[in-house]
Amino acid sequence: MTIANRPTIPAETYVDRLRRLAELAGSRSVDGIILSYGADLAYLTGYGAMPSERLTALTVGGRSSTPVMFVPRLEEPAARAGLGTDIAIETWLETDDPYLKVLGRFQDAHDELIEIAISDRMWALHVLRFQRRLTSATWSSATALMRELRMVKDANEIALLRLAAQAADRVVAQIAAGRLVGRTEADVAREVHDRLIAEGHDTAEFGIVGAGPNSASPHHQASDRVIEAGEPIVLDIGGILGGYCSDTTRTLWVTGGDPAKGPTEEFRHLFGILQTAQERATAAVRPGVACEAIDAAARDVIEAEGYGEAFFHRTGHGIGLEGHEEPYIIAGNDEALQPGVAFSVEPGIYLAGRYGARIEDIVVCGPDGPDTLNESARELYVVDG
Amino acid sequence: MTIANRPTIPAETYVDRLRRLAELAGSRSVDGIILSYGADLAYLTGYGAMPSERLTALTVGGRSSTPVMFVPRLEEPAARAGLGTDIAIETWLETDDPYLKVLGRFQDAHDELIEIAISDRMWALHVLRFQRRLTSATWSSATALMRELRMVKDANEIALLRLAAQAADRVVAQIAAGRLVGRTEADVAREVHDRLIAEGHDTAEFGIVGAGPNSASPHHQASDRVIEAGEPIVLDIGGILGGYCSDTTRTLWVTGGDPAKGPTEEFRHLFGILQTAQERATAAVRPGVACEAIDAAARDVIEAEGYGEAFFHRTGHGIGLEGHEEPYIIAGNDEALQPGVAFSVEPGIYLAGRYGARIEDIVVCGPDGPDTLNESARELYVVDG
Repeated sequence: MTIANRPTIPAETYVDRLRRLAELAGSRSVDGIILSYGADLAYLTGYGAMPSERLTALTVGGRSSTPVMFVPRLEEPAARAGLGTDIAIETWLETDDPYLKVLGRFQDAHDELIEIAISDRMWALHVLRFQRRLTSATWSSATALMRELRMVKDANEIALLRLAAQAADRVVAQIAAGRLVGRTEADVAREVHDRLIAEGHDTAEFGIVGAGPNSASPHHQASDRVIEAGEPIVLDIGGILGGYCSDTTRTLWVTGGDPAKGPTEEFRHLFGILQTAQERATAAVRPGVACEAIDAAARDVIEAEGYGEAFFHRTGHGIGLEGHEEPYIIAGNDEALQPGVAFSVEPGIYLAGRYGARIEDIVVCGPDGPDTLNESARELYVVDG
Repeated sequence: MTIANRPTIPAETYVDRLRRLAELAGSRSVDGIILSYGADLAYLTGYGAMPSERLTALTVGGRSSTPVMFVPRLEEPAARAGLGTDIAIETWLETDDPYLKVLGRFQDAHDELIEIAISDRMWALHVLRFQRRLTSATWSSATALMRELRMVKDANEIALLRLAAQAADRVVAQIAAGRLVGRTEADVAREVHDRLIAEGHDTAEFGIVGAGPNSASPHHQASDRVIEAGEPIVLDIGGILGGYCSDTTRTLWVTGGDPAKGPTEEFRHLFGILQTAQERATAAVRPGVACEAIDAAARDVIEAEGYGEAFFHRTGHGIGLEGHEEPYIIAGNDEALQPGVAFSVEPGIYLAGRYGARIEDIVVCGPDGPDTLNESARELYVVDG
């Protein structure tokens, strides 16, 4: 499906982001920033370079305020085609040392102790090579700066996250309506993949299909286990649409059409607790509320019912160009929500060796409360399968 | 397609690899090794952990020779299911500091200057957190050790590389036989993706479809450009089968069925040079020959014909669990080939703004010469399209 009215990020947005990053760096006394392939680069330039042993890096700050993209010579045409705004490109050849070229942007500060911030997703391969060539620097995470920009989504970003969420919702509905009993988890995961693409995602990143006891494994890798009637399935799926990620979880119970194989009373009970926890956490979303308070809103419900030990992961994670990004909805994170911050709300209850359940929505903090991007019902999907 | 007789790596192979790595570390005075998600972990344990902000790490060396896997609590069941051999697992909870737990394996050496080797693909996020917690250590690339193991493929690994190569060959033949004119590059890339899966790959990693002037962009990202009759297409495709990568390139020329739209004389000429270069480089493969000599064998041909400037990338890269790994077939690399080393041989000639061509095979160094895994013809595919 081609998604109509799919927004694109205009060139002036990239210019603005680059300007704000340089300002932030100045205010924090960071002397230079090296951003590599991945979401940081895509956010600032529109160019989604492939992670590689060949260095692609954008420098911000340093000798002049002009950002410079360093790209391998063989990727120069791809970089030019991919950039969403005008940025100076310097190429390096296969037998050059690109690290020295990049560090040259900061060389006025050589021999002084300077601070250089680098992307969280830069490979150790590149980190160690930079460090060996500039031993007088201290190295910090560029996320300390980038999070200030990337956490708060603008209208285009929210529109893309919403389109991605709605596409994932359609896939949940299609899977819940289809045949499941007698198929392997891996086979259903392949169907999830194809449907995510068919519904408008550019890539399908993951499809957790955890059936029976595997529903108690939060990051289960879809296996050759055959789905049986009379058991739950945790379906946690997501992909990328226009650069932005979807991520939603619903829990199904397949009966095989046999009324005697419906959910156990215990399962209905724990699912009810989970629904309340997920509702409470979502309802708590508004500007000024701390991330840890959202986590607590879900956890308090589950703990009060005696399932605290069975909810052994955080309540959520930020989402945008990356599937997991700042802010994390976890105890100890006193970051206050702001309008435009987008994240998952996904409590779970897992009884090892038996079964588990999770409900996950993507929620944007609105000016007065939560804006939930996923629209599919948050109930237990009791289906024939 | 389900591939029959697809080998799996037996548990004793993992045990042997772990033992050899510990021995190597001892002989090189590396005090400890921290291997993260990605090929290093999969090679040593069979477990393909997802790259994540949540640390998964295998320690080798340190306080005792026993390797230990550190995994997030919520991924414990996935790790247990994924491990190809018996390895001790320690879990960490969401609010724990996993870095201190991991470094605890090496703490006898605290306050001394010790050397810790880390995986090349570990994210900077994790590297910087380790470094901040153990400032008395020096940090090096674990590839210095891992390459000794991973470069030389055993019979099971070569069998999997061959199955992957043959599956990719079938996709090349299918694409060359199908309709191309009037379709976008991106549409053809989607077909490549689906066919790689249909032919037995578990995932389809990339599909470069560079038509017309885009064929001069070696890492072109498939675009909305519509393919026309009377132009070349560089088709560079690959995926993963049983953990091992395929990667092959063939160059097509689409005529649209019009004999007047066949390849230009210049294109036929440069393609002939490329064929000779690729043949010579492959023929030079045998134990004891340096990687740089393979590069030179291709480059000398192209330079002698005056196209040296138009071949601006290395001749190849190692391949195995990663699409690009050691050894690199590049000037300056005097590493001598050994039987079992697998790599690409892929010279190219690119005339910016006009067109380009590349031929790529995966070649294993055999005891007496090259074992070329790809079997499709290395000629220019002149097709109706």
